[in-house]
Amino acid sequence: MDIAIPLYDGFTALDAVGPYEVLSRIPGSSVTFVAVEPGPPKPRGHSPSASIPVSVNTDNGMLTLVAERSLDDVARPDIVLVPGGPGDVVARAGEPMLEWLRTADRTSTWTTSVCTGSLILAAAGLLEGKRATSHWLALDRLGELGAVPTSERVVFDGKLVTAAGVSAGIDMALALAARIAGDQVAQAIQLGIEYDPQPPFDAGSPQKAPAEVVELLRSRSV
Amino acid sequence: MDIAIPLYDGFTALDAVGPYEVLSRIPGSSVTFVAVEPGPPKPRGHSPSASIPVSVNTDNGMLTLVAERSLDDVARPDIVLVPGGPGDVVARAGEPMLEWLRTADRTSTWTTSVCTGSLILAAAGLLEGKRATSHWLALDRLGELGAVPTSERVVFDGKLVTAAGVSAGIDMALALAARIAGDQVAQAIQLGIEYDPQPPFDAGSPQKAPAEVVELLRSRSV
Repeated sequence: MDIAIPLYDGFTALDAVGPYEVLSRIPGSSVTFVAVEPGPPKPRGHSPSASIPVSVNTDNGMLTLVAERSLDDVARPDIVLVPGGPGDVVARAGEPMLEWLRTADRTSTWTTSVCTGSLILAAAGLLEGKRATSHWLALDRLGELGAVPTSERVVFDGKLVTAAGVSAGIDMALALAARIAGDQVAQAIQLGIEYDPQPPFDAGSPQKAPAEVVELLRSRSV
Repeated sequence: MDIAIPLYDGFTALDAVGPYEVLSRIPGSSVTFVAVEPGPPKPRGHSPSASIPVSVNTDNGMLTLVAERSLDDVARPDIVLVPGGPGDVVARAGEPMLEWLRTADRTSTWTTSVCTGSLILAAAGLLEGKRATSHWLALDRLGELGAVPTSERVVFDGKLVTAAGVSAGIDMALALAARIAGDQVAQAIQLGIEYDPQPPFDAGSPQKAPAEVVELLRSRSV
């Protein structure tokens, strides 16, 4: 079970690492972080480059993850998981990554995203007419890109699976683990990461958070 | 508000990245990932090295994070947050990191850990007689190291704050954010990362998980 997580400048760390922590614990799974290969364009037919691994910066620049392989090196993963980020993630992901996603989706078992990663899947044309979710502040944009925006935490539409904002990737990954390896394996992973959430506030969705907090976030995102 | 997260070979990625995603969103905070400086010992009084950043591997080797600074470069952080990992984390953290923790704790506002990171704090002598928690499978070991093991998700004892296994670091970080910047800031962060947990199972603690799943984890950890 080969799982590829494509990274691009300014992705949100927890979007990638939350699901990684779950999916990497499925027996037999292998997770690879991939990125567009850096450096000047290469002639066609070049062999895999020695310039990978590359460092990829997260959204606030305080954390850097290492992508061990280039997109070209991982052409047919069983699962693709696209993290989101703030701002124009589609531009930052870039056309080579959109093209890679279209190709990977042809043979994948599951094509998935967390947060605004669904905007990238939609821009690649993979969510046309499909029910999908995203960060709550990005649902309108998701609709503009051709998907059917759905305010649920995890949305399955065929093999396309999308999660709501940032932390929702953990819930999506547990749901995927259950589909892939059975309920008991998913429960063992949940217990292994002691995922018995007890947030000190009940403010994790715009329906539950105080109105002034919702407004604060809306005003910042404009 | 300078926050230092020390990394060592074989740490668990989500232990570090969950709290990072919360704490880095506190206005005015700056998070730095630090590690023991690699390479041969340096003469006393050396200036900060150009050999940092270094790559640090996570517990299963599939993900590498970059530590931008050496321990010596970040001597007096306001907050220290020690991630855990499987196996003998105290040995892997190593004596230089224990010594750095003792020094950092003298001037820190908060000294904190996630999962078995508390074993490292305890081995450094910082949890002697203090109420603390850890991964549920490591509570006995925590007691052997001089702490008073406490089966709670987040434990405050003075400025020492410990979280239970892996994902509990997110809850701890939100509680810290509230103490540091107020409830509204913590709620805005929670809404920003859409932390409205909806795990597909209720199996996140040994009290809640099916008995056979608990036994499965216990047998693996021996």
